[in-house]
Amino acid sequence: MKIAIVGLGLIGGSLGIDLRSQGHEIIGISRQANTCQIALETGVVDRASMDFEIVKNAEIVVICTPIESIAPTLTKLIPYLTPEAIVTDVGSVKQPVVAACYPLWSNFVGGHPMAGNTKSGINAAQADLFKGAAYVFTPTPETNAIAVEILRELALSLGAIPYLCTPAIHDRAVSLISHLPVIISASLIATCLTTEPDTLDLAQKLASSGFRDTSRVGGGNPELGVMMAKYNQTELLNSLSIYRDRLDSIIDSIERKDWHNLEQILQTNQAARPKFLKD
Amino acid sequence: MKIAIVGLGLIGGSLGIDLRSQGHEIIGISRQANTCQIALETGVVDRASMDFEIVKNAEIVVICTPIESIAPTLTKLIPYLTPEAIVTDVGSVKQPVVAACYPLWSNFVGGHPMAGNTKSGINAAQADLFKGAAYVFTPTPETNAIAVEILRELALSLGAIPYLCTPAIHDRAVSLISHLPVIISASLIATCLTTEPDTLDLAQKLASSGFRDTSRVGGGNPELGVMMAKYNQTELLNSLSIYRDRLDSIIDSIERKDWHNLEQILQTNQAARPKFLKD
Repeated sequence: MKIAIVGLGLIGGSLGIDLRSQGHEIIGISRQANTCQIALETGVVDRASMDFEIVKNAEIVVICTPIESIAPTLTKLIPYLTPEAIVTDVGSVKQPVVAACYPLWSNFVGGHPMAGNTKSGINAAQADLFKGAAYVFTPTPETNAIAVEILRELALSLGAIPYLCTPAIHDRAVSLISHLPVIISASLIATCLTTEPDTLDLAQKLASSGFRDTSRVGGGNPELGVMMAKYNQTELLNSLSIYRDRLDSIIDSIERKDWHNLEQILQTNQAARPKFLKD
Repeated sequence: MKIAIVGLGLIGGSLGIDLRSQGHEIIGISRQANTCQIALETGVVDRASMDFEIVKNAEIVVICTPIESIAPTLTKLIPYLTPEAIVTDVGSVKQPVVAACYPLWSNFVGGHPMAGNTKSGINAAQADLFKGAAYVFTPTPETNAIAVEILRELALSLGAIPYLCTPAIHDRAVSLISHLPVIISASLIATCLTTEPDTLDLAQKLASSGFRDTSRVGGGNPELGVMMAKYNQTELLNSLSIYRDRLDSIIDSIERKDWHNLEQILQTNQAARPKFLKD
């Protein structure tokens, strides 16, 4: 197939490497001439350009830009798309993206490959980035079932595990397991920073694996943290509201010295956590 | 030196292995005959008994029982101690332990070696458990300085990094970096479990490293979680109160769409977190 990738960063570049190695013809589009050149030189794409005209006759177009640019990018692409072209994206939030893009292009299917690492840019692109990772597609009830099936097969060909759900359920689930952890972890670091110098000094010396793990996502990339709060605001605030209730209930147990209730909560957690972990 | 270890679990047993290998004479006391036998057979101790009389003439006594048994154990030990004997403990909370033990024995110095793993019991005892770990001692202003210095040297001989501070600063610091993470992590798991079945199912499938790390200590040993809340209740509640303020302030920024403020908080966190991590 002829597959166009718009935005050649870590995700777009890694998609190019894997799909090209399967024999697909890969067309790359980037806003930067330098990125196009690197993508060509490193074999990530067959052809690359800063001009959207290059997507002509592509059967699948994957928009790998930051979330805020997805719909504007689709608008610029439309003049060059054949009517059958399937367009998907890789944004980490789906309701605003699908709401903006589906009316523009009926063969648009929201997508979210849940892969990545701490690096970014075309030079971080790597083979097999999606192997074993979840890849969520969020069709609407009206979405062409064949388009969804073609993308599902493409995800499988990357070694990813495809899931189908509504944009709302996707956004709610990632607010719980991805965005909420960032905020509660950030609040932990912020709490430690309010303490008096002697205690802060000792806390820094004594902190070990428990603190390291619980503070990791809250001490990560600030731009990513803001982006997820901005684009998944409603679901994140809803998850935060439930979180505050659960936290208050535990604080209440500790205040009342209801150790039995605290132990029950912790026992339920201990039993439930393995269901969230990959085998 | 003649060193007695009361309570031969992971910590007591591992202390025995390291100190005996340095040439100290190690006396073990356990409530269970079977534990005494294993400690003898595996070379953790030179002699072992269920009878406290065996500690006679010990220069240092390390009480390695659960927190609630530390003061009662000291009371039982006193009839057999020589006046110069230095007594320390390994409990993870220091204010209630020091308040109960120092009036009983003026050569008592609270201690907290911050080492361990997920295993417990004499069979989990291992060499070099304390290598590179923080080892906190919490003398009072009246504590014999020589006793503190002897214990500090002992910690250094284990390869641990000794720190001296007041019991209050110790308890405040561990409430921040060890006990608070358990509660906020537990509240995260509890939040996910309140969601409707479709979202919970997808959340379990999509959860990856961010959720795994942030939920780890909240899905751990329930008895340990209850114990730290029980014995460090005041400091933990104080830390939780500050945490709620920090959390509310972030929630407020998200509600008001004050992305600039959210980004500043996350930038401060990103810059501050490395100071809590070991080199």
